Amino acid sequence: MQFDDFKAIISKYKVIFFDAFGVLKTYNGLIPGIEKTFAYLKTQNKDFYVLTNDASRSPDQLAESYHLLGLHDVVPQCIISSGMLAREYLELKVDHGTVAYLGTANSAHYIETAGLKTLSISQLDLNTISEVNALVMLDDEGFDWNTDLNKTVNLLRKRNIPVIVANTDATYPVSQNRLAIAIGGVAQMLETVVGKQFIRFGKPDAQMFIFAYEHIRSPSTVTKKDILMVGDTLHTDILGGNKFGLDTALVLTGNTQAEDAEIRIRSTGIIPTYVCESAVID
Amino acid sequence: MQFDDFKAIISKYKVIFFDAFGVLKTYNGLIPGIEKTFAYLKTQNKDFYVLTNDASRSPDQLAESYHLLGLHDVVPQCIISSGMLAREYLELKVDHGTVAYLGTANSAHYIETAGLKTLSISQLDLNTISEVNALVMLDDEGFDWNTDLNKTVNLLRKRNIPVIVANTDATYPVSQNRLAIAIGGVAQMLETVVGKQFIRFGKPDAQMFIFAYEHIRSPSTVTKKDILMVGDTLHTDILGGNKFGLDTALVLTGNTQAEDAEIRIRSTGIIPTYVCESAVID
Amino acid sequence: MQFDDFKAIISKYKVIFFDAFGVLKTYNGLIPGIEKTFAYLKTQNKDFYVLTNDASRSPDQLAESYHLLGLHDVVPQCIISSGMLAREYLELKVDHGTVAYLGTANSAHYIETAGLKTLSISQLDLNTISEVNALVMLDDEGFDWNTDLNKTVNLLRKRNIPVIVANTDATYPVSQNRLAIAIGGVAQMLETVVGKQFIRFGKPDAQMFIFAYEHIRSPSTVTKKDILMVGDTLHTDILGGNKFGLDTALVLTGNTQAEDAEIRIRSTGIIPTYVCESAVID
Amino acid sequence: MQFDDFKAIISKYKVIFFDAFGVLKTYNGLIPGIEKTFAYLKTQNKDFYVLTNDASRSPDQLAESYHLLGLHDVVPQCIISSGMLAREYLELKVDHGTVAYLGTANSAHYIETAGLKTLSISQLDLNTISEVNALVMLDDEGFDWNTDLNKTVNLLRKRNIPVIVANTDATYPVSQNRLAIAIGGVAQMLETVVGKQFIRFGKPDAQMFIFAYEHIRSPSTVTKKDILMVGDTLHTDILGGNKFGLDTALVLTGNTQAEDAEIRIRSTGIIPTYVCESAVID
Repeated sequence: MQFDDFKAIISKYKVIFFDAFGVLKTYNGLIPGIEKTFAYLKTQNKDFYVLTNDASRSPDQLAESYHLLGLHDVVPQCIISSGMLAREYLELKVDHGTVAYLGTANSAHYIETAGLKTLSISQLDLNTISEVNALVMLDDEGFDWNTDLNKTVNLLRKRNIPVIVANTDATYPVSQNRLAIAIGGVAQMLETVVGKQFIRFGKPDAQMFIFAYEHIRSPSTVTKKDILMVGDTLHTDILGGNKFGLDTALVLTGNTQAEDAEIRIRSTGIIPTYVCESAVID
Repeated sequence: MQFDDFKAIISKYKVIFFDAFGVLKTYNGLIPGIEKTFAYLKTQNKDFYVLTNDASRSPDQLAESYHLLGLHDVVPQCIISSGMLAREYLELKVDHGTVAYLGTANSAHYIETAGLKTLSISQLDLNTISEVNALVMLDDEGFDWNTDLNKTVNLLRKRNIPVIVANTDATYPVSQNRLAIAIGGVAQMLETVVGKQFIRFGKPDAQMFIFAYEHIRSPSTVTKKDILMVGDTLHTDILGGNKFGLDTALVLTGNTQAEDAEIRIRSTGIIPTYVCESAVID
Repeated sequence: MQFDDFKAIISKYKVIFFDAFGVLKTYNGLIPGIEKTFAYLKTQNKDFYVLTNDASRSPDQLAESYHLLGLHDVVPQCIISSGMLAREYLELKVDHGTVAYLGTANSAHYIETAGLKTLSISQLDLNTISEVNALVMLDDEGFDWNTDLNKTVNLLRKRNIPVIVANTDATYPVSQNRLAIAIGGVAQMLETVVGKQFIRFGKPDAQMFIFAYEHIRSPSTVTKKDILMVGDTLHTDILGGNKFGLDTALVLTGNTQAEDAEIRIRSTGIIPTYVCESAVID
Repeated sequence: MQFDDFKAIISKYKVIFFDAFGVLKTYNGLIPGIEKTFAYLKTQNKDFYVLTNDASRSPDQLAESYHLLGLHDVVPQCIISSGMLAREYLELKVDHGTVAYLGTANSAHYIETAGLKTLSISQLDLNTISEVNALVMLDDEGFDWNTDLNKTVNLLRKRNIPVIVANTDATYPVSQNRLAIAIGGVAQMLETVVGKQFIRFGKPDAQMFIFAYEHIRSPSTVTKKDILMVGDTLHTDILGGNKFGLDTALVLTGNTQAEDAEIRIRSTGIIPTYVCESAVID
């Protein structure tokens, strides 16, 4: 297939939504040249947001990580993470007690609210759970899978509480040829085992896009037709963008390889508006 | 379990979202007394919307049907249907050609737009499909299942086009003890058979709630905490309302019976804020 | 990938199991030359059986259809059909009353037993179902899908009876570029809609292979290592043969094309012992 | 519902198949009095077998465990375990190289064969996997879930090898009110994550029943009508027994409680021939 020119495409849009992993960066740093894209967007006075299925860190910490990599234009105000949705859910729906979590202490810190304290499943005593009013799955690290996943199953059998999955991804790359199971993959197992309905936040779910949509600087002048979603994954970025009514650009710097982009689009029926080699503008 | 008093509950909210089937009406007409609820809401100057997984008719036609039943307060402006989301999708994402559909001619009429003409699968000739740019599943009536579902499978093998399912329900009641398969149930079969990803609109999906949220009369004064979602079905009304961050009330006049409400809530893990016998206010 | 020579392969086995559709025949008749394969097997005094997910006809009728096509060596005694398993189930587990069915009258005739009479869903009166003790799904033809699938849903809500699906295939080809939905695809929809567990007979299920295994002429001299399963479909023929402990040969005259055999084997993890262009021996 | 008398029932059968966990024993030892049942079966000269989804130990070790509990009639010859099926699969289908496994060293010992050596995933070096020709999932203990499940995902991405799941159960009880995730539950997660088709052995799969059927002492005098399957779990013991064509008895000493037996039978559509309070014969 032939590819579309990213620079020419974005000229048609006022606001660009970017996926993070596979579009801006990979396991070994920034996509070379991606900082030029953001410099260009600023010269063109285009608004942009980064939509990421990441609940392991706060937007401030995520922005800091880009800064350290040398990408200074991705500031906290333009980051929309699935962790923000989990945080909003807890604020609105769980007003007291303890939120048990699977993840690192750092990932839990961000979701603490006025009325809520957090408790790692690894610290949980199954005999004193009457105060546990929600479970949040944040990160695949920070706990022992054997012990703590079994503890989680028993918590959910004793307490009928909402379970929030703050990252819908099943896996993530840790090196050029190694994957790791993400908390979203672990959540699928627990949901099947306990037979209850979990609440998932993250692309392709519409709420990620609404959240970004509501952050747009000058909403009065922007309609969905003015927004482009850019991502490397058909089932999250492109499906979610399409469903929300946005035009979508698939880039080939991450999960989807140039050689099988066409066959994957045909076999899944998830059809991007454009296919570009990368989001880099030279 | 003991039930909450609906009148007392709504005093805490500025805006009420209602499911239609099983809450306002059933297969044999209005829920007796439901009109008093809407009279009361108007005296209290509370804003209300009806969110319905129904793409078989336009909001005007849906309002007309309530009017004929004697419920005059449910006007087109307060109806949010999954058909409206399908219509927006087509407006935003499919700007020319033909939209093939499964449903009645009436259901198709509503989704026709400036650039798009519609064509029933029953009228489709599989040899001339180059202009077909989308398929929409609207209603379980208006076509022959044997012939036209097989025709649909072959259309989707030849044309890689978006498939929009405008009603996510699997079944609907047609009498006190008879169900019928809804187009959402048919869609599941087709999606499995063709192995492609369809785009579904309807509760519990967040987009239904956003659509209603954006219709609220005085948005500046209303937050999600001021809205109550009222429904009879845990997997659509209550799950969707909870996920969107709203308080939720399960009523027992439809899919969920009083005797098994408690066990269903426990077995599904879908937890309403309140459980009320009905949405009727005397 | 390079292909194995079918003639050379079968020299290693005493008994050959064949899938029918895509191996012996297609929508437009016999695979050219396949009769030579059976002539050769007889000269070599090798035992062979045809294992087919087909409950629309009796083994006698299936053999007759091969005879009419010019393949005279496939006699009733060497045909193992999923309909035979459904028939055995009814003989063993349902000893009186009526068996309702979806399919043609001809397909039902074969499953009638001493104690059981059959009744087409299209003839069924939902008000007189107390004698209906099982439902069997036999064929996608012989009934009206709109009317009779809805009738089936209501039958299964009123009577808690075993549901037997006598063909696990989701689709079947009707011409070079047209598919039709098979009764196995319809069964998936009904099972989801009614939420009950159906009983499926057909490859890849082990029972098909046992049935064939028990028919082997000289069982005392044959072990599983002496049997080769030949099929065109990874998910039924090859998966089932592998799981039963047989060596397996994938042929490329049906569902699996030469150009994507390798990628499909890798992506599914269903690994045949051999891959051959066809089962024809010249 | 009223219950059937177990002693009266078994008088109608020549051979009895028993599930183990929840029928003969629980997390805290033998079901009181169960030894009397086996004494009675011997006086009646009835043949019996124990069919268990357990690949953590050999039949000899399983029999030894019953002996230590005081049940001396369950000898190795009457035990059919899913581990035996996994072992047969490897003997027939994997004739050289290394079998990687998830489980304890003890569970692996049993599946070692002439041509095959076993290697724990915890010992596996992902850089030297060219000799690994199969993966077997045997037990939830004996490895670190965080490290070794991620290692397994990457092994299966690099080597397209058969994956055998030797225990289909998702959970098992460890005390009166605690469950643990079984290897079958872990297998579901890995299968979803890697997107490949695993091979499962254990009830309700027919192969367990065939294996037992082939062990029957005097096969010539026994038909399927002479065999009763006794179990505590609808989805494994009863579904599998029914599908194989056996009469089935649900006992209420394990997974299914007396108070919800009726509703579970109705909601699943899995219908035992009999329901008995226990398999104990006084």
